This record gives sequence, structure tokens and C-alpha cells, in this order.
Amino acid sequence: MADQLTHLDERGQARMVDVGAKDVTQRRAVARALVRMTPATAAAIAAGNAPKGDVLATARIAGIQAAKRTSELIPLCHPLPLDKVTVDAEVDAAAGVVTITAEARVTARTGVEMEALTAASVAALTVYDMVKGIERGVEISSVALLEKTGGKSDYARGS
Amino acid sequence: MADQLTHLDERGQARMVDVGAKDVTQRRAVARALVRMTPATAAAIAAGNAPKGDVLATARIAGIQAAKRTSELIPLCHPLPLDKVTVDAEVDAAAGVVTITAEARVTARTGVEMEALTAASVAALTVYDMVKGIERGVEISSVALLEKTGGKSDYARGS
Amino acid sequence: MADQLTHLDERGQARMVDVGAKDVTQRRAVARALVRMTPATAAAIAAGNAPKGDVLATARIAGIQAAKRTSELIPLCHPLPLDKVTVDAEVDAAAGVVTITAEARVTARTGVEMEALTAASVAALTVYDMVKGIERGVEISSVALLEKTGGKSDYARGS
Amino acid sequence: MADQLTHLDERGQARMVDVGAKDVTQRRAVARALVRMTPATAAAIAAGNAPKGDVLATARIAGIQAAKRTSELIPLCHPLPLDKVTVDAEVDAAAGVVTITAEARVTARTGVEMEALTAASVAALTVYDMVKGIERGVEISSVALLEKTGGKSDYARGS
Amino acid sequence: MADQLTHLDERGQARMVDVGAKDVTQRRAVARALVRMTPATAAAIAAGNAPKGDVLATARIAGIQAAKRTSELIPLCHPLPLDKVTVDAEVDAAAGVVTITAEARVTARTGVEMEALTAASVAALTVYDMVKGIERGVEISSVALLEKTGGKSDYARGS
Amino acid sequence: MADQLTHLDERGQARMVDVGAKDVTQRRAVARALVRMTPATAAAIAAGNAPKGDVLATARIAGIQAAKRTSELIPLCHPLPLDKVTVDAEVDAAAGVVTITAEARVTARTGVEMEALTAASVAALTVYDMVKGIERGVEISSVALLEKTGGKSDYARGS
Repeated sequence: MADQLTHLDERGQARMVDVGAKDVTQRRAVARALVRMTPATAAAIAAGNAPKGDVLATARIAGIQAAKRTSELIPLCHPLPLDKVTVDAEVDAAAGVVTITAEARVTARTGVEMEALTAASVAALTVYDMVKGIERGVEISSVALLEKTGGKSDYARGS
Repeated sequence: MADQLTHLDERGQARMVDVGAKDVTQRRAVARALVRMTPATAAAIAAGNAPKGDVLATARIAGIQAAKRTSELIPLCHPLPLDKVTVDAEVDAAAGVVTITAEARVTARTGVEMEALTAASVAALTVYDMVKGIERGVEISSVALLEKTGGKSDYARGS
Repeated sequence: MADQLTHLDERGQARMVDVGAKDVTQRRAVARALVRMTPATAAAIAAGNAPKGDVLATARIAGIQAAKRTSELIPLCHPLPLDKVTVDAEVDAAAGVVTITAEARVTARTGVEMEALTAASVAALTVYDMVKGIERGVEISSVALLEKTGGKSDYARGS
Repeated sequence: MADQLTHLDERGQARMVDVGAKDVTQRRAVARALVRMTPATAAAIAAGNAPKGDVLATARIAGIQAAKRTSELIPLCHPLPLDKVTVDAEVDAAAGVVTITAEARVTARTGVEMEALTAASVAALTVYDMVKGIERGVEISSVALLEKTGGKSDYARGS
Repeated sequence: MADQLTHLDERGQARMVDVGAKDVTQRRAVARALVRMTPATAAAIAAGNAPKGDVLATARIAGIQAAKRTSELIPLCHPLPLDKVTVDAEVDAAAGVVTITAEARVTARTGVEMEALTAASVAALTVYDMVKGIERGVEISSVALLEKTGGKSDYARGS
Repeated sequence: MADQLTHLDERGQARMVDVGAKDVTQRRAVARALVRMTPATAAAIAAGNAPKGDVLATARIAGIQAAKRTSELIPLCHPLPLDKVTVDAEVDAAAGVVTITAEARVTARTGVEMEALTAASVAALTVYDMVKGIERGVEISSVALLEKTGGKSDYARGS
């Protein structure tokens, strides 16, 4: 089964897979991260957001910028000329949850799920950074791929 | 309550907090990330790891390198001359879980919890990247601070 | 006179000046950039800013992040563990001007004027980028140091 | 009018515009930055430049390297596989002006004006850095796009 | 003869060559670096490698990541969307040599020899870093291009 | 002997060594790289260098900038606030050799030999890049540490 790990060669060594023979297609991926905190902390984000929007705006920008640096962070990822990155961040103050949703698109030989996941993760870490002064137990409770299209086969979480 | 968000100024705008008046002390933080997958995928990592160790070795290196770039990724983090970063990765094949534990240390005016959390997150994303070819539903199910010492007050999760 | 160019050695070659013998002091610099556009474009920024604040928020974040990368961009700058960076951006819609003001602080052997200037420049370029779709003739009409303290001698523009 | 700010979505939030449906064409942009100083400082650059050329050579290299990192600096810019970047720097010692001219070319779905502007800005900041030891009042007095071809419509400043 | 230096323009100034008119082809390059040390040090690497493989694994990952950053490091290199990077590292304990072999592939308008050479160099530096605690006289005794295909003409070292 | 590899922990896993308990001292390292080519190629560099100095100037700048990014390139290196970096490059046209000498200094808890070696290596790669259009068999024939002071014990090559 180990040989199914496509990033390892026949000797088990890490490698960047050759995508030179793959087709250039339009590829898209959507990922999500959940940041859990107390309702009071979530309310502070929502209130802080009311006049100037900076907590969530900062997280969105951080996520977009991180997507562009995915291949620097994840050793075996290919550098990709991204067509689009968006990061949304929504606060559910009552539930104490900030939901980050990141979408990446590219016209290339390989997909962008790591870019979407990296954007979501870094946006979530940015929210964490900005609220850690008022609550220390904040947790990024889930980072997951929601959907992916344009490669060999499509994927939709839960379907 | 919004004014408790120390990264926002009185107008709600994002800012990098001034740490110039804080003491230089030895600071330490430990963070954890859990990567959940099927037992079969976890077994492939463990087996792939037997001869050459590259899945977990790659994740450890990626986490260490990411810790050093935290201030580039998280907009309001301070650049820090880290004293030490370690990333451990353990596979529980039966449970289908890879547990990442990252520790960062610094002698500086501000702490390293974001460095530990960033290391754990990027190591977890690297595990995800290396197994996504054999399982698509992998989830980073928790990223959290375990402990923190050396700042104004200490913290230990769950205590 | 050429030997007064401290970044050139006796043969006129670029070098990073040795700051090892200089004192560690608290240093501060403030820089400014002006972005000139039509009043209509400035009004669009101000209006776009009303609900969510993203044009100026994006510019502020970009400036803060750029300050931290000054030594990567400016070849002979020293890497510095910045204590603080803030970037303010104000729109004067009637005059068609966005004024960026960036402040950097550090406790180190050399100053932060390039960090403040880089933050202001990149914030200004970010404003440019975000309005270039509605006006092409936008100009960054001035980037200058306003003040500097903590080094061998202080400086205040125009005094 | 705010909806003309293409980097903002319908809620006023920053986004990286989707260029996936745009044509791949050869695109080119030229930008300029002016660095104003006293004639004595400009003469020092020219003289320092005579034997070894390092002030302007350093600025040219810094500008070229910055062009390649535009998408890391400007949050909503797309990463682009640049075909060419050149940066020229000319000293007019009598007028006390260094004129930076940067050209960028790409074969891609979006243009390179931010790359040309970033190259010119960083080259200008590098000149500033290298003369700040002999004159503190140096100003980058103008950063502007001179021309742009290959996109939906061409642009030439002042025409 | 100086005008044969394609990175210099007619005035001898550094420039990034325009590759916009070149064909997009599949290009490949292989480079090698030799790291020479005492047999005892080489044996320590081999032994340390037995259980976990981390010295050579770390070098391989460092080389792959460096290949992706070639255009940031080498001023006149073009940014390239690499299709593949692999780095192999073999220890000859008796001879006291670690041989690094790096391969890069791309589908682009210009070649990847600098990417292969940068990967090999940084992998070799990483080996150096990891053994410098036990031997100080380690030397990277050769970094060279072994072969190159897909451009105007092919190349094979020694043929 | 493997336990002497200080970058590996007791399980053979890569780690960034903890330098928190080490003294802050002034540390210095000098490294050298030799680039071997035909006398004709070396003469082209020397001639190209006469009027504008750009080949060697570009290599020097690339080396200085690379020194500042050592901890990003070499996975287990600590980020350091460098006090000084210089890179010299001399052409011996008759012998067909460009000799790069890089010096790095820091006031810190750990040394700068990797910074000096990285600067020398990247400067050598930059020379290679700029002459590869006229000669393909160029080799970086030696990268080595020349001396090191300020740590637990000093070192001088060949002494």
C-alpha cells in the first residue's frame, strides 16, 4: 500500500511528482476551517468587525497571501500561477464559531486543494492570533476539503 | 469588549502591538495538530515510514521551516530570532490518527505560541498532502495550544 | 565624496555595513506616502470603505507585512526583530488623495527608516492596485521620511 | 461606483479577481520612479558609479528581484511567470534626480503593471537606502505607470 | 565577447532576458553536488540514516524546496511553474563522499538548469550543516550540470 | 557516533538545536567558493565588468541577499539578526577562476558559518547563471569554510 503514496518513490523517499504529462485544465478547490471560541470572544470579533471589519479582513488577506505561498510551505507542492483565490470568514457569535471558507482556481497541470487548505488554515491561525489576547483556549477544530473539480475525478465532501 | 482585541487600535484597525517595553525572557510554547484518516491510510504512512521515514520526516521539516516564517504568514506577528523548534509526528494506525506536536522557544519580548501553532498546522497540511492520493476525506481535526510559559502568565490546556 | 556612501567600500562595491559595534537602542521612524487620484476614485475608496473597510484595511495589512520583509527587498538592509509596525491610511475624497503613514519601532543596533518607507510604499502600491480598474492615471506622488529617533542623531522633516 | 473596484466583491470584501476566463496574451508595462536629492548627493552616486557602478547596479538588481515577488507583496496580485524584467537607472546630477524606469513582460491572463511599479518602487527605495547616510531629505517624488499593452485596452501616460 | 553574456545589455548592465518569443517545450536538467568529509563522518550519516533517514531526508527536502525558490535567489532567473523536482543523496562511507543528484523538469519558455543546480547546492549545504558539529573541514567539492534537454540544444557533461 | 550529529535527536530525527542557554557573543565566519571556467569566459566577465561591473556586482548582491535567507533555505538553521555581510568576487582570467569570498557577522547565541557558506554558494551560482550562455561546462569547484570565530572554539582552514 505504501506505493500508493504518490509523493514517495520506490525507495520510500519524498519526491515532487512529475505533472509534465498531465493536461492543462481549469481546476478548483474549496476548503473550510472552523475556529471555536467562547460566544463572548466571537461577539468581540463581530463587534470589532462592525465599524472597520479588521479582524476578518485581516484573516481574509492573510489567507489569500498564504495560498500564493503554498508551494513554499508544503515541500512537495508544485508552484502554480493561481487564477483566483477568495477567502470568506463568517462569525456565528451565539455558537462561538468563525467559519473560514477558501476557494482557489488555476488553469494548470495539477490541482489546488493544498492552496485552498493552506488559505483556510492560515486565515484560521490569523483569527486565533487576533483573539488570543482575550481567550487562550481557542481551537481550530476542523480543516477539511469541501470540494474539488477539474482533475482526474471530482470530489465533494459527504457526497 | 472590542478594545480587548489587542491587535486592533481604538478605531478597530489592525496593528502590530508594540512590544518594545516588554521584558526579554525565555519563552516557550507547545502546540498540537491531529490529522484524522482511515486506519488503512495511517498504516500506509507507518509502513512507508519503516524503511525511510519520509512522510513524517517531510512533515517535521515542513513544520520547522514554517515556524521560522510565522511572521510572514500571520500579519500581526513579530519577527523572532527563534532559539529552537522541534516537531514530532506519531502515527496511531489503529485509530487512524497522526498526532503532530510542535515546540518553539525564544529569548525575546513576545511569545511563540503562533510559531508553535503554525509549525503544527503546516506539518499537518504536509501529511495531508502526502496521503491525499490514497484518501480524500482526511481532516485536520484539531489545532490547539497545549502550553505556554515565559510571558506575563503561563498557560496549560485543560488545567 | 563617494566614500560618504556608507554602503560602498573603498573600491566602490556594495556592502552591508557592520553594525556590530553600535549600541542597542530603541529606534523609531515614521514615513509617509501620498497616492493621488481623481476625487471620484477617492470617493469610491471612501464609499467602499464604509461598510467593510477593505481597500484601506488591505493596504494597511500589506504595508505591515512589507515592513517585516524590508531586508529581503532592500539588498543592504539588516534583518531586524521589529517591535511594532503600524500603517494608517486616510482618504481626502475632495482632494483626491490617500495619505499613508507608517511607523516602525525596534530595539536594535540600527534604525528602521527603510522599514517605515517600505511599509508606506507597499501600502501605496496596494491602494494603486485596488483602484487601477477604475482609474489608470493614479500616481504615488511622494514617499518620504517624516521623522526618526534613537540613532546617532534624530531627524524631523522640515525642521 | 464602489462596485467598480474590481478587487472588492458585492459585500465590499477584498478578493483576488478570477482571471481564468481571460485570454493568454503577451502583456507589457513600463513604470517610472523619480528619486529627488541635492545635486551633491546625485554627484556622489554618479562618481561612486564611475569605477564600479554599484549604487545603480544594486538598485537595478533590487528592482528586478522585487518584480518577481510582486504577488507576495501586493495582496490581490496574481503570481505570474514573468518573461522579462529590466530596470534602468539614470542620474541627472545637476538636477539632483535619479530616474528609475522598469519594464515587465509576461505571456499570461493578466497584466504586469504592478510588477513594473513594484520594481520601480523598490529600486527607488534602494537608491534611498544607499544615500541616506549622506542626505536625509531624499524623496521618491513620483511613482507612475508610463505605458501598458496587451490587455483589454492599451494605456500611455499623458496621451 | 562581453556581448555574449546574454544577461548584460549593450551597456553591460544586468537584465532578465526576454523569453516571450521562445517556444514552450518540456525542459529537463540534472545537476550534481559532491560533499567531501572523513569516512567517519560519512559513516555517521549512514548510521544515523539507518533507523530514520533524517540527514539525507532533510537534505532532499531542502533541495526540493530551494529549487522552487531559484528565481528569488538568482537575480536574473525567470520564475517557472516546475513540473517536477527530485533530489537523491547517496553516501559512500568508505570514500567519505555524499553525492547529491537533483533533477528538475518544466514545460516552459526557458530551461531549468539553475533550478537543478540550486537544488543540488542547497541539499549539499544542508548536509554540511548537519555534520559540521562533528567535522569542520567538510567541503562541497563540486557543483556541476550533468545534462540538459529541451532547449535550443542539448548538453551532456563529458560527452 | 550518530549521536554526535547534533541536529538529530535520540531517535535520529531532525531538530533545530536549542541555543537558548548559549551566550550572546560576536561571531564571524568567512567562506569561499571557486567557479572554474575557460580563460575566455573569465575574460568576458572581466571585460564585461570593466565598464559597468554588473556580473560581479550582481553576484555580490545575490550573495548578500542569500545570507539573509539562510534560515529559510537550510532547514535546521536559526534565524539571525545579521550585523554584517560582505561578498567579494575576483576574476583570475588567465586561470579561468572566479573566487568568491563571503563574510558574515552577528551578535547572537549561534554562529554564522552557514550564512557565509550560503552567500558564497549563491554568489557562485549567480556567476554560473550569467556565463552559462557562453560556456556550459562551468563548475563550482569548491565551497568551504575558511575561518570562524566567536563560538565555543575558533577554526581556521588548513591551520
